[in-house]
Amino acid sequence: MTLPATVAVDVGGTKIRAGSVIDGELAHVRSVPTPATSGAQAVLDTIAEVTAAVVAEASGSHGGESAWRIGIGAAGVIDPATGTVVSATDSLPGWAGTDLVTELSARSGLPVRVVNDVHAHALGEAAAGASRGTRSSLLVAAGTGIGGGFITDGHLLTGRNSAAGHVGHVPSAAASGLACPCGGTGHVEAVASGPAILNTYRRLVDTSDSPTSAPNSVAGHEMAAPAPGNTRELAAAASAGDELALRAFDIGARALGSALGGISNILSPEVIVVGGGLAEMDETWWAPLREAFAAELIPATSGTQLVKAELGQDAALVGAASLWNAEQRETR
Amino acid sequence: MTLPATVAVDVGGTKIRAGSVIDGELAHVRSVPTPATSGAQAVLDTIAEVTAAVVAEASGSHGGESAWRIGIGAAGVIDPATGTVVSATDSLPGWAGTDLVTELSARSGLPVRVVNDVHAHALGEAAAGASRGTRSSLLVAAGTGIGGGFITDGHLLTGRNSAAGHVGHVPSAAASGLACPCGGTGHVEAVASGPAILNTYRRLVDTSDSPTSAPNSVAGHEMAAPAPGNTRELAAAASAGDELALRAFDIGARALGSALGGISNILSPEVIVVGGGLAEMDETWWAPLREAFAAELIPATSGTQLVKAELGQDAALVGAASLWNAEQRETR
Repeated sequence: MTLPATVAVDVGGTKIRAGSVIDGELAHVRSVPTPATSGAQAVLDTIAEVTAAVVAEASGSHGGESAWRIGIGAAGVIDPATGTVVSATDSLPGWAGTDLVTELSARSGLPVRVVNDVHAHALGEAAAGASRGTRSSLLVAAGTGIGGGFITDGHLLTGRNSAAGHVGHVPSAAASGLACPCGGTGHVEAVASGPAILNTYRRLVDTSDSPTSAPNSVAGHEMAAPAPGNTRELAAAASAGDELALRAFDIGARALGSALGGISNILSPEVIVVGGGLAEMDETWWAPLREAFAAELIPATSGTQLVKAELGQDAALVGAASLWNAEQRETR
Repeated sequence: MTLPATVAVDVGGTKIRAGSVIDGELAHVRSVPTPATSGAQAVLDTIAEVTAAVVAEASGSHGGESAWRIGIGAAGVIDPATGTVVSATDSLPGWAGTDLVTELSARSGLPVRVVNDVHAHALGEAAAGASRGTRSSLLVAAGTGIGGGFITDGHLLTGRNSAAGHVGHVPSAAASGLACPCGGTGHVEAVASGPAILNTYRRLVDTSDSPTSAPNSVAGHEMAAPAPGNTRELAAAASAGDELALRAFDIGARALGSALGGISNILSPEVIVVGGGLAEMDETWWAPLREAFAAELIPATSGTQLVKAELGQDAALVGAASLWNAEQRETR
C-alpha cells in the first residue's frame, strides 16, 4: 500500500525550511539559506535540493512506499490556482512571475501546490495550532511587516489577484503621515511593525533630546546603554525599563490592536491569532494590544478572542502540507 | 405542476416592504409603516398581513399553482441559522430575541428564511445588481448608518454571532474623539454617515462663526437660506455651492473612501458596491470617496472596482428571495 506523504516547504527571503508531513506529523525539518541574490532559478534549484533531501531521509526512516507530493508556502503574492508568483518584494529579485508549480514539478517529478507564506501560516494555525477547531479565524503575522490570512469554514480567503490578507495596510490615526513600505502612507504597518516601532523610538529620542520638550527622565535615558540598533535590542531596552522604548512598543501595539478591533467588526472571526516576532514579546506589547483591540469592538463582536500563535515557524510548514488535505481549497 | 414562488420582505424600523419573486422577477411590491412602537408581536402580525396580501395578489395574476415560501431581510443582527434576532437597536423595541422563522411560519403556514437587511441588500446586488457575476463583492450601505455585507464564491459572510459586515465600525483618523452610535468612539460611521456629516457641518459653522477664525466666505454663508436640518437639506445646500456643506461631505466621503481602501487590502474583493442614501449624491461625494479609496490601495489591490449600487431599495427584496436559491448558504 502506498501512503500519501508531503514535503512541506517554507520559502522566505533569507532561508528555506522544509520537512516531511506524514499522518499530520512534521519531521525531518531542515533549513538552508535562500540564495536570493542569485535569482529565481537558483532559489528553485535550492528548493528542489532540500526537498529531495527531505524525501530521501524520510523515506529511509519511514519504511514502506510513499506517494510524495510537495506543498509550498512562499514569500510574495502567490496565485494558488496557477501556482505562480504574482508579485514580490526586492528581497527576492526575479521572483515575480515565477511559475512555481511547473518549475518544481519539472525538477522533482512530484505534484506541487503553493500558497503565500503568511497564508500557509494561517492554514497551519487553523489545522493544528491556536485556531484549530474554529469555523473562522484571522492569523496576523506581526514582525518585519504585518500580514495575515483569513479562513472561514476551512477555506482560505485569497481574493482578487490573490491579494487578500494585507491587514497591515489599513489606515491608522497613529500612523498619519508615516511612509508605509507598500508605497502609501498612514497604514498601521508604518507604526506597528518591528522596524516601525524602532523608528518611533528614534523619533521619541529626537524629540526628547530637544531642549524645548526634554522631561527629566531624558537625562537618565541618555546615560543608558548604547542606542538599540534593531527591534530585538529595543525589546531588551523595554524589558530593562527604558521609558521611551516602552512608549514606542505601546504606540505600535495600540495601533495594531485598534486596527484588529476594526477588522473584527467586519469579519467577526471566532479568533484572531497573532504570530510573528512581536507576538513573542511580553505584556509590554500584549497588554496595550488587547486593550486597544477591545475598545474598538461593537457589542455584537465583543468577546472575539485574541490569542498568541502556537506553532512558531512550523506553522507555515504545517499549513503548506495542509494544501493537500482533501477538504482544503481557497475561496475568492 | 407546482412552481416555486417567494414572498420577499424587507423589515426596517420605519416601513415593511414586500413583493413576489417568481422566476427572478420582482412584482406586486407593497409597503406599509412598521408598527415599531407597538412591539415585536405587532410587527410580526403586520409582516404576516402584508405577506398574505402579496401571495393573494400574485397568485391571482400568476395563474397556476405555486409553492410559496418567505424570504426576509430584517433590521437587527440576525442569525440565519436559527432565524432569530440576536440584537437590535432602539428603533425596534422588543425586536431582540424574536424567533422570526417560528413566529412567521406559524402565522403564514409557509417556510421562512431570514437574514439581516443589509446582508440581504448585498445578496441582491450580487444576484442581479452591480456585483452580479463576480466571485467576491462587498456591499456598503451608506446612509443613516454605515453597514455592509461581504460575499465570496456566492456565500454571504455572517461570522461569529452573525456580526460580520459592520464596515462602519473601523477606526478613522477623521473621526478621532467622535462618539459612534455603537457606543465606541472614532469609528468611520461617526464622521461618514449622513447624520455624522450634518454634525460635521454644524461644527464647521460653529467654528467659522467664532471671530478668531472666520474667513471672508462666512459672511456670505450666514446670509444664506435657513440652516439645513437634515442630510437631504445639507445635500441641497452643497449642490447650491454652500462651502461648509461641501466641506462636510468631502470630509465624510474621504473618511469612508479611506476606510474602504483599507478593507480592500484585507478582503481584496472584485468590486465594492456602494448603496444607501449617500450613494445617491453627485460627484460632491463620489469624487473624494474614490480619490481617498484609491490612495489606500496597495499595488496588489489597485484596480479594485468601486461602483454605485443598481437596485436601490429593491436590492434587499431580491436578496431576501435569493435565500431560497439552491446554491445560497451563509459562511462563518
